[in-house]
Amino acid sequence: MSKVTSRVSGELTVLNEDPLVAGTPLSTMDSEETPARSFFVRNHFPIPSLDISNWGLSVTGEVERPLRLNYDDLKRLPSKEIGALLECAGNSRATVQPPIEGLLWDHGGVGSARWAGVPLRAVLERAGLLTTAKEVLLEGADHGKERGEAGELSFAMSLPMDKALHPDTLLAYEMNGEALSPEHGYPLRVVVPGWYGMTSVKWLANIKVLDHPFDGFHQTRYYVYVEEGAENGSPKERVTSLQVKSFITWPDRGHLLVAGRHQIRGVAWSGRGPVSKVEVSTDDGRTWLDANLEDSKSPYAWQRWGFSWEADRPGYFLLRARATDREGNVQPAKAQWNYRGFANNSIHAVPVEVRSDR
Amino acid sequence: MSKVTSRVSGELTVLNEDPLVAGTPLSTMDSEETPARSFFVRNHFPIPSLDISNWGLSVTGEVERPLRLNYDDLKRLPSKEIGALLECAGNSRATVQPPIEGLLWDHGGVGSARWAGVPLRAVLERAGLLTTAKEVLLEGADHGKERGEAGELSFAMSLPMDKALHPDTLLAYEMNGEALSPEHGYPLRVVVPGWYGMTSVKWLANIKVLDHPFDGFHQTRYYVYVEEGAENGSPKERVTSLQVKSFITWPDRGHLLVAGRHQIRGVAWSGRGPVSKVEVSTDDGRTWLDANLEDSKSPYAWQRWGFSWEADRPGYFLLRARATDREGNVQPAKAQWNYRGFANNSIHAVPVEVRSDR
Repeated sequence: MSKVTSRVSGELTVLNEDPLVAGTPLSTMDSEETPARSFFVRNHFPIPSLDISNWGLSVTGEVERPLRLNYDDLKRLPSKEIGALLECAGNSRATVQPPIEGLLWDHGGVGSARWAGVPLRAVLERAGLLTTAKEVLLEGADHGKERGEAGELSFAMSLPMDKALHPDTLLAYEMNGEALSPEHGYPLRVVVPGWYGMTSVKWLANIKVLDHPFDGFHQTRYYVYVEEGAENGSPKERVTSLQVKSFITWPDRGHLLVAGRHQIRGVAWSGRGPVSKVEVSTDDGRTWLDANLEDSKSPYAWQRWGFSWEADRPGYFLLRARATDREGNVQPAKAQWNYRGFANNSIHAVPVEVRSDR
Repeated sequence: MSKVTSRVSGELTVLNEDPLVAGTPLSTMDSEETPARSFFVRNHFPIPSLDISNWGLSVTGEVERPLRLNYDDLKRLPSKEIGALLECAGNSRATVQPPIEGLLWDHGGVGSARWAGVPLRAVLERAGLLTTAKEVLLEGADHGKERGEAGELSFAMSLPMDKALHPDTLLAYEMNGEALSPEHGYPLRVVVPGWYGMTSVKWLANIKVLDHPFDGFHQTRYYVYVEEGAENGSPKERVTSLQVKSFITWPDRGHLLVAGRHQIRGVAWSGRGPVSKVEVSTDDGRTWLDANLEDSKSPYAWQRWGFSWEADRPGYFLLRARATDREGNVQPAKAQWNYRGFANNSIHAVPVEVRSDR
């Protein structure tokens, strides 16, 4: 029997208990900042238990001065705060057809928060990069087994140098003004704005500057796009930048509305520049009208939008929202299928019923 | 927050606790008879508690002799045993795009069993039908509230006279040779072979012969096909006969197979005559080959099928199975969308990975 478990626990929809996987309810996405208690969690392994007094971040590999920084050392470095959305690469997998095994995320694998910490660049500069540096490996303290792999693995992903040195790639110790919670990576996690969440490594333990491409399981065999018919030894494209996407956060599917004027609300984002337009259809995609799109305080956070709908005819309606980013990327009706159902950004559709107010 | 709960409990995948909704795992569909403990449950209201010593079935309305039959009375009537599959009208709803609210059945809302009991016809004949009889209303002892409806409802559905008088429409007190369990309708349930499960009313309490069409919530407002854009007062077609359908029961999605010969297995059924052909594709629907289809002992049960696959190339494959019934109905790639996601019989697809045996 496939291990599919899901329940609503407090403010998260739990898909799996251990490792914890839990989603943000759509209805709570209706704010600029997602509270930590409602912010999705996608762990690969059990949450590591850490003793903060012994904890340290090591920086090794192709550097002039290997470092070991404790929590206080990090807090003393110049800090930065960035608003950034994180989305799980598998978010919206449940709407991919045919679906793939495992975590059937509905739409809950996304949240937007304020992160404070030290730019990864500042730490790398302190260590001094050698000219042989090719990639920066980020290794979490979490570890365990993965299907079809021998032995135990740590969760680890690498960044190319341009992304590692980007001034907004953060080693974050705070989320929405508070220390990270254990589920969100206490004491330290990476935040890579604009990319899917898999490189925003939690419980960060080691930074290793490599002189070669990293070949770990999650990087080259898991978080990759696999087409139908692909051979399983062949190299595959990594999942990186967020696709342009939007959700309707109100109404929820199946809602019963009284005939009249209603404000359809939602959020939109893209890893390839801000969203420039959100259109809404209330007739199953036959006609589209522009929504009112708010700017966000940060280019990496989601943007909220609203649309005033004169729902004067009782009946059954399919609401859809479609975002376009400044580069001209538009959400497709159906995203290209891939074996793990990653990066699905097909247009969100919400069926609702309108009844006359008798 | 939408009330979505799901967990694996024993041999069922629980989607909702109370009223209980729980699915048959695909892997346990691989037998002619689904055990009661693995047989799906789709309750609308809490399971009614009954005192069998006081229990009785009433037969009233357009009849010459209103009846009240107790459990022993029923057991003394001539009995019949029928193999029949039951499928929830909402089965496979999770693969409908856009999905609709509520019970996101994956594929677990189906099971096939042996039912023993008294033909409904025999009971109606004992009561003596008046010429004014138009429909037979079947009312369960379960009751509760439904969204948007005032007051409490009993679960109740009617049958047209031809279906009510069909010799295989059963008032069943046994499932697979044992008394019904509480979840499956103890002491008495209806079994309407060839129709979706909603008219196979459980905990049957009253049979009312009507001289007019029944207008209950579940019959005319819930278990109906609603198109996008439909007005909500307009009459809608009832969900009745089972669509032709098949499932791959092995392998399950995401399975890792060692390169070599494998037996793909599955089940197939139709409410419109036996299944005449099952075809299998291992290349995402580009080519199709006939599977070996077994006959079943009953025209209302599912038929098992197998297909020998020479999986000699390592890689990622999409397996599909497509059934055709004797009337020529074929499963579609994508079924027609309807607001409640009923009667989805689109082709089942299962992504698997084949690895060489290194």
